Amino acid sequence: MTDPERRAMARARWLGASVLGTTSPNPAVGAVVLAADGTVAGEGATQPPGGAHAEVWALAAAGERARGGTAVVTLEPCAHTGRTGPCADALIAAGVARVVVAVPEPTELAAGGADRLRAAGIDVEVGVEQDEAELGALGPWLTGVREHRPQVVWKVAATLDGRVAAADGSSRWITGEQARAAVHRLRATCDAVVVGSGTAVTDDPQLTVRDADGRDAERQPLRVVVDRRGRLPEGARVLDDAAPTLVSRAADPAELLAELYDRDVRRVLLEGGPTLAAAFLRAGLVDEAVVHLAPKLLGAGPALVGDLGISSIADALSFETVEILPMGGDVQLRLLPTRHTGARQSVLEGS
Amino acid sequence: MTDPERRAMARARWLGASVLGTTSPNPAVGAVVLAADGTVAGEGATQPPGGAHAEVWALAAAGERARGGTAVVTLEPCAHTGRTGPCADALIAAGVARVVVAVPEPTELAAGGADRLRAAGIDVEVGVEQDEAELGALGPWLTGVREHRPQVVWKVAATLDGRVAAADGSSRWITGEQARAAVHRLRATCDAVVVGSGTAVTDDPQLTVRDADGRDAERQPLRVVVDRRGRLPEGARVLDDAAPTLVSRAADPAELLAELYDRDVRRVLLEGGPTLAAAFLRAGLVDEAVVHLAPKLLGAGPALVGDLGISSIADALSFETVEILPMGGDVQLRLLPTRHTGARQSVLEGS
Ligand SMILES: NC(=O)c1ccc[n+]([C@@H]2O[C@H](COP(=O)([O-])OP(=O)(O)OC[C@H]3O[C@@H](n4cnc5c(N)ncnc54)[C@H](OP(=O)(O)O)[C@@H]3O)[C@@H](O)[C@H]2O)c1
Ligand SMILES: NC(=O)c1ccc[n+]([C@@H]2O[C@H](COP(=O)([O-])OP(=O)(O)OC[C@H]3O[C@@H](n4cnc5c(N)ncnc54)[C@H](OP(=O)(O)O)[C@@H]3O)[C@@H](O)[C@H]2O)c1
Repeated sequence: MTDPERRAMARARWLGASVLGTTSPNPAVGAVVLAADGTVAGEGATQPPGGAHAEVWALAAAGERARGGTAVVTLEPCAHTGRTGPCADALIAAGVARVVVAVPEPTELAAGGADRLRAAGIDVEVGVEQDEAELGALGPWLTGVREHRPQVVWKVAATLDGRVAAADGSSRWITGEQARAAVHRLRATCDAVVVGSGTAVTDDPQLTVRDADGRDAERQPLRVVVDRRGRLPEGARVLDDAAPTLVSRAADPAELLAELYDRDVRRVLLEGGPTLAAAFLRAGLVDEAVVHLAPKLLGAGPALVGDLGISSIADALSFETVEILPMGGDVQLRLLPTRHTGARQSVLEGS
Repeated sequence: MTDPERRAMARARWLGASVLGTTSPNPAVGAVVLAADGTVAGEGATQPPGGAHAEVWALAAAGERARGGTAVVTLEPCAHTGRTGPCADALIAAGVARVVVAVPEPTELAAGGADRLRAAGIDVEVGVEQDEAELGALGPWLTGVREHRPQVVWKVAATLDGRVAAADGSSRWITGEQARAAVHRLRATCDAVVVGSGTAVTDDPQLTVRDADGRDAERQPLRVVVDRRGRLPEGARVLDDAAPTLVSRAADPAELLAELYDRDVRRVLLEGGPTLAAAFLRAGLVDEAVVHLAPKLLGAGPALVGDLGISSIADALSFETVEILPMGGDVQLRLLPTRHTGARQSVLEGS
């Protein structure tokens, strides 16, 4: 891989990430077309369902400059005709000389793109910085392909001593403005936001994506309350018309995820509370944790996570910290479970 | 201040920090002597009680090269004759042309150094990067001067959900090797290590400073168990002969700190547990917190800190995070209380 290609791949991952939350059930792919001289000729990312794929969008931007150039894509171009034509054919028609791909297409339906390109005399390299792409914007879709369930990101805000609310139940605000704004950006990357009935009843959150001025974003993830005993009051804010809402009676996290998967949800933000989070963790159904820690102590109040059935240190659930980010006065930790049932391991075992 | 002087001041702070834990009840001062051409001629730090002061040590190393040069010191050179002669006189005798000082001498006994130097025709600048020096190695001694008590550093290791042990009481090991090694280095900078009877009984820790191979360091801080009801068993490891131990019946943290201050302790490492830590926090007697967070979840077990008498978010104890350090798989946070009774505020209010 050349240096311009390496930069283009990083940019393609970024482009994919920029449309996360708008493409499900399709993958959030990013693509960059380099002209023959290595300069950027066009960029693209997956459009909402029914719209163009990333490569096609990037080729359109590149126009004639694509001829003899290189297409850099996070996912292998498809070879099948769905709501849009095969991307492999579009690349051939545009006259690119080389295609660099991060993740090979895992579904039989769309597979064969690389072969078709090679058959047309195009130089194809697959598997380039594959891990980075899989852990990034393609993660939700890959989890769907491999496990037939959405990816689950668990977000929690707590004090240093692991309290998610004070003894009197007050939890506004544990973290500062910057961390709270980050939560809204995180919600925007998800297809659904899930809370348990406890949180819905205690905090009465609206669960919408809002900007810094408190205005609702145009696109809103599905709001989900898991409420098996029908405790959610009629006037709850989560039932307003700012966004669609699902009140689910799913018996357990797996059943809930199946329900959401059938509604084309591929990325779920689990926003608590501790009881529901514990249920997901016990079921091995958390793929990533985003923890916002406020430099505060409460000494009392509900704990970050409910009972996990763990009694000794040796059995603690363990994570790998992949990012530590100061956020105003708070700290954001991004963590991946190390004993994991999810997408990452399946990848290594081959798919 | 010139660039060489700025570098020398940073180095002087580092030199002071390197002897923290060996100088009490004296301040851990660092000094660098620059030759007339701005190159480093000599370095020094406070020697153990009865030994040379930092400036004298640095002048000895510099020899004739000090003449016409600059002495850069974290604390104003003393003007009084204690166990050693006045440092101001040593600087005059060495023929330095300029003296750069971070922190003015706050005690009447030793004050007057800058004046004496100026009277001898030496150019003196005081208050250079004073905050950095006060928050560093001079902190313990300044707390002593201003509040007649030792500085208190609270160290705690916890899981992400704020558990300091598992439900079955097991707490070995929450954090990994690197974090544990850092605790031993932290202990070495302190004059005493304090735990409550609960920790002493449950964990039976030895509380010594050990190197990576488990060997006891030569210098050991005083081990302190606060045990008001005499629960400490005779065979407790903290009572072995690896280091001196004080079993205290002090009724509260303030009484304990007074007891330790009288024994020339100027820096205390409070190592728990949650009940004793809560008592210190409630009394406003924690100057700094060092929190080691392990990326683990337990869902049960003793909390990081006991009851603080706080029931609402608005009353949470709050800190400023001054350092975030990845440490093996763990994360170290260094925090300063923002509502603080300790040294830092007294400085700003003048002393
Ligand atoms: N700081 C934060 O990030 C944050 C986030 C959220 C909440 N909180 C705080 O957390 C507290 C609420 O805690 P919580 O634990 O009651 O909230 P929760 O986890 O949101 O709700 C618990 C309820 O969820 C229902 N549920 C549905 N499916 C479940 C399943 N598979 N397993 C277990 N329970 C399931 C149960 O009620 P049914 O049996 O009736 O279905 C259960 O009682 C509040 O104080 C809130 O402020 C803080
Ligand atoms: N992970 C860590 O960093 C860490 C560190 C330490 C402990 N721990 C864990 O913490 C647990 C022990 O907790 P703990 O709270 O019992 O330990 P603790 O705080 O060390 O001991 C509590 C005892 O200290 C005594 N004490 C003395 N002076 C006191 C004062 N002024 N205020 C309050 N208490 C005072 C009290 O007994 P008397 O009334 O008899 O004096 C009290 O019962 C263990 O599971 C241990 O593993 C973890």
